[in-house]
Amino acid sequence: MHSEFDLIKRLFTRPAPQAELGVGDDAALIASTADCDIAVSTDMLVSGTHFLADTDAYNLGWKSLAVNLSDMAAMGATPRWATLAIALPEADEAWLSAFSEGFFSCARAFDTDLVGGDTTRGPLAISVTIMGEVPHGQALRRDSARAGDDIWVSGTLGGAALGLAALQGRATLDETMRDRCTLLLEKPQPRVALGVSLRALASAAIDISDGLIADLGHILERSNLGAEVHANLIPAHPALENIADRALARKCMMAGGDDYELCFIAAPAVRQRIETISTAALPLTRIGRLTAASGLRILDADNRCIELESAGYDHFA
Amino acid sequence: MHSEFDLIKRLFTRPAPQAELGVGDDAALIASTADCDIAVSTDMLVSGTHFLADTDAYNLGWKSLAVNLSDMAAMGATPRWATLAIALPEADEAWLSAFSEGFFSCARAFDTDLVGGDTTRGPLAISVTIMGEVPHGQALRRDSARAGDDIWVSGTLGGAALGLAALQGRATLDETMRDRCTLLLEKPQPRVALGVSLRALASAAIDISDGLIADLGHILERSNLGAEVHANLIPAHPALENIADRALARKCMMAGGDDYELCFIAAPAVRQRIETISTAALPLTRIGRLTAASGLRILDADNRCIELESAGYDHFA
Repeated sequence: MHSEFDLIKRLFTRPAPQAELGVGDDAALIASTADCDIAVSTDMLVSGTHFLADTDAYNLGWKSLAVNLSDMAAMGATPRWATLAIALPEADEAWLSAFSEGFFSCARAFDTDLVGGDTTRGPLAISVTIMGEVPHGQALRRDSARAGDDIWVSGTLGGAALGLAALQGRATLDETMRDRCTLLLEKPQPRVALGVSLRALASAAIDISDGLIADLGHILERSNLGAEVHANLIPAHPALENIADRALARKCMMAGGDDYELCFIAAPAVRQRIETISTAALPLTRIGRLTAASGLRILDADNRCIELESAGYDHFA
Repeated sequence: MHSEFDLIKRLFTRPAPQAELGVGDDAALIASTADCDIAVSTDMLVSGTHFLADTDAYNLGWKSLAVNLSDMAAMGATPRWATLAIALPEADEAWLSAFSEGFFSCARAFDTDLVGGDTTRGPLAISVTIMGEVPHGQALRRDSARAGDDIWVSGTLGGAALGLAALQGRATLDETMRDRCTLLLEKPQPRVALGVSLRALASAAIDISDGLIADLGHILERSNLGAEVHANLIPAHPALENIADRALARKCMMAGGDDYELCFIAAPAVRQRIETISTAALPLTRIGRLTAASGLRILDADNRCIELESAGYDHFA
C-alpha cells in the first residue's frame, strides 16, 4: 500500500502556480480574479460507457480533462484549476504513468493546474471537476439566445462518431482516415480559445458532446425558442464523404457525440466579425437560424422539412 | 432513457440561491466574496471500499456530502457550493429518491448549494467536489503547526470504527450502542462550525477520516515536526469501554477511520480561549504536544513510550 500511495503522489503532485495551495492539504486554496465569475463543471467517465476498456491510457488521461475544458469553452471561460477523482481496480504503474502524462499534457496545453484529487480502489471511473474564470456578465449561457439569431458550428462534425463506428466494425475507412477519426474520438481538442473570442460576439453556446441535434436542442429548450437548420450547410467531416452507408454518415454528422466542437448563437449584425475569427484550421460555419416558433426543423437543399429520424436522430439513443 | 433523465433532473435540480447560475448549463457560475480564498476538495466513494453495498441510500446521500464538508471544516472554510457526479448500475427511483433526500438534507443543514452534476451508467461510484470560502490568510493548513503547540481533538474517537466492526460481526454491542455507533459511521456530522471558530485560534487542523495516528501523521509530515500523545487523554467513544477485545478497542480509538472529528494544533497561549468553545455536546480535549524532534511517540499513564503497533496502529491497513 505504501509504495502504491507514493506512486500516485509522485505521479499526480505537480506544481500548481495558479493556486495559493495545491495538492496535499484537506483542500486546495484558490483566489479568483476581481470582477470574474468562476465557472464550475463536473463529469464522470466510466469504462464501457464513455470509453472502450482498451483505450490508450495516455489518450484517456488527455480526454478526461479535455471534455471538461470543452465545458469551459462553451461558457467562454478561461480554464484555471481542476480536481481529479479516480477509482482504479489496481495500481498498474505503466497505466497510471501514461494516464497522468496524458492528463498533464492536456493541462499544460490549456494552462490548467491540478489542485486536488482522490484515488481509490474500485471499478475504473474517472471524475474531473473543472473551474475557470469569465468576466462577470460575459458567460455564454444556454438561456440567452434570441429569435432571429444565427446558428454557427466550429470545425467539422461526425468524425469522432465515425471513428467509434470504425473501431466497432460498423464502418470501413482507409488507414489514414481511420487514424484521423480515432484521434478525434480519443484525443479531442477543446475549443477554449474560440470560446474566449466569442464572449463579446455570441448570445449563447454549447459544446457538441451528445450530437448536434441533441445539444442544439438544449439551447432551444433553455432559451424557449425553435430553429431552422439547413442540412446541406452542416460541415461534415471529410471522412464521411466516402461512406457507402449514407444513413450512418448522416447519423454521425447530426447526432454523433464526442466532436467537442462549439455550437453557438449570434446576432446577424456580428456575422462579419465572426467570419474574421474563422480560420482554415478551425472554420466557423453558419448553418441556420433561431425562430420564435418552437421546434427544430431540419431543411433540405430545397427548403423542405426532413424528419429528424431521417436526418439521423434517434430519440432513444 | 427519457423518463430516467427526467427523474434525475427532477431529483437533483434544486434552487441554488448562492450561485449566479445553477444546474442546467455547460457549467455553473459562482462569485466569491471579496478578500476570501476558495477552498476546493474532492472525494470518490465506491461501493465495497467506502460503504457496504446494502448501506441505506438516505444515509449514503448524507455521507457523500458530509465527508466533503468535513474537509471544509478542517480548513476553517464555510462550505457554499458542491457538485455531484454519480455512476449508477440502474436508475432505481426509490433508491435515487432516498439518496437525493439524504444529500439535500445534509446540504440544507450546512447551507451548501448543489450547482452541478453528472449522472451516468456504471458500477456505483459517487464523486463530490466541495467549494467553500475562508478569509485570505486564515485557512487552517497542515503545514503551519509549530513545535510546542498543543494537540487537540474534538468529540470522541473510535465510535464509527466500532460501528463498522459490529456490522461486520467483529464486535458485539447492545442495541442502543450498536445504533449509536452505526449512526456515527453512516451519518457523520462534519464539524463545520468548529472549523470556523478555530480560524483565529488553531495553527493547523485535519479531519480524522483515516484514524488519529495516520491523520496526525499528515500534519507532522507537512509541518516537519514530531509529537507526544498521551494515550490515556484520548477521548474514547463510551461504547469502547465495555469491549472485551481491548486490542480492537485501542485500534478503533487510535486508528479507526470515519469519525470525522477534527484534530487541531494550537499554541498553549490560547488554551483558555479553546476551552470556552468546548461544550458538553462537542468537548475539545488536549491530548499532547508537538515536538521539534521528529516521530510520533504515544505515551502511557507513566510517560512510557508505547509501540504504535501495540497502540492499535497497522502500517499496512
